[in-house]
Amino acid sequence: MSLEPVTFHPIGIVHSPYKEKVGTPIQPSFDNETPGTIEIFAPYQEGLEGIEGFSHIYVLYVFDRAKEAKLKVKPFLKDIEVGVFATRAPSRPNPIGLSIVELKAREGWLLRVAGLDILDKTPVLDIKPYVPKFDIREVTRLGWMEGVMEDASRHRADARFGE
Amino acid sequence: MSLEPVTFHPIGIVHSPYKEKVGTPIQPSFDNETPGTIEIFAPYQEGLEGIEGFSHIYVLYVFDRAKEAKLKVKPFLKDIEVGVFATRAPSRPNPIGLSIVELKAREGWLLRVAGLDILDKTPVLDIKPYVPKFDIREVTRLGWMEGVMEDASRHRADARFGE
Repeated sequence: MSLEPVTFHPIGIVHSPYKEKVGTPIQPSFDNETPGTIEIFAPYQEGLEGIEGFSHIYVLYVFDRAKEAKLKVKPFLKDIEVGVFATRAPSRPNPIGLSIVELKAREGWLLRVAGLDILDKTPVLDIKPYVPKFDIREVTRLGWMEGVMEDASRHRADARFGE
Repeated sequence: MSLEPVTFHPIGIVHSPYKEKVGTPIQPSFDNETPGTIEIFAPYQEGLEGIEGFSHIYVLYVFDRAKEAKLKVKPFLKDIEVGVFATRAPSRPNPIGLSIVELKAREGWLLRVAGLDILDKTPVLDIKPYVPKFDIREVTRLGWMEGVMEDASRHRADARFGE
């Protein structure tokens, strides 16, 4: 079975200090305060009204510099091979990235954010408010990540993470 | 400025008891235990290995029955008009849905989940593990949702939410 392909048009672009994968934090948490800007293009700017009220937002974006999709990957945090859907690696069948960042301020069509883990010039697909009642869950199983998360805060992407 | 459009191919489909928008929970939290299944198509099934270890997953999907995109929407929970990016409404420029569901079990290419708020036959774009260290944030501002969230758990979508 398969379904129709879908085409999306980027609504904006990320301006970030990270120009290349090496050295980019692997996720935007861990006291990462990296500042950056999300620029929303003119046709979509009206849709930002009210976003400034939220302290955190989801950014959905395209991993536009990911290598070819792979179904099995070696995650950055552990020396094993797992299915790509059990990881946040960029080399996915549909290379959509998901990050939660802190929204410091909105200046017109510019979102000033902190906690970025996204490469400079990354195309943005969507912005959504982060809402604890929807988005905070109590997990009971962490799979292969069990026990490796303590180390994650010290890690930044190496060359492998582009694969 | 604009960037190249991107095309994605659904990796799977949602099987849910919700056949139409009216009556569907507006988000998958709030003790919603609605069971359902996410079926991953053959070319992508290998990518599921290890996902069963996680108790919660992100599902990224296409709001394939959303009406035309609007930049200003009346959110379901409050009688105001705000920018669509300050809401989780389906009628977005890029109609990508994001839900966190509980993963009860994997049976081969079938993910048995609970806490569904997704319509039956919805195309799935990506699955990612939910990881507290990445995904739980302490918010300080909730924008227009401030004070309305107490009521949200009693709400199900009305016809307006398809707009």
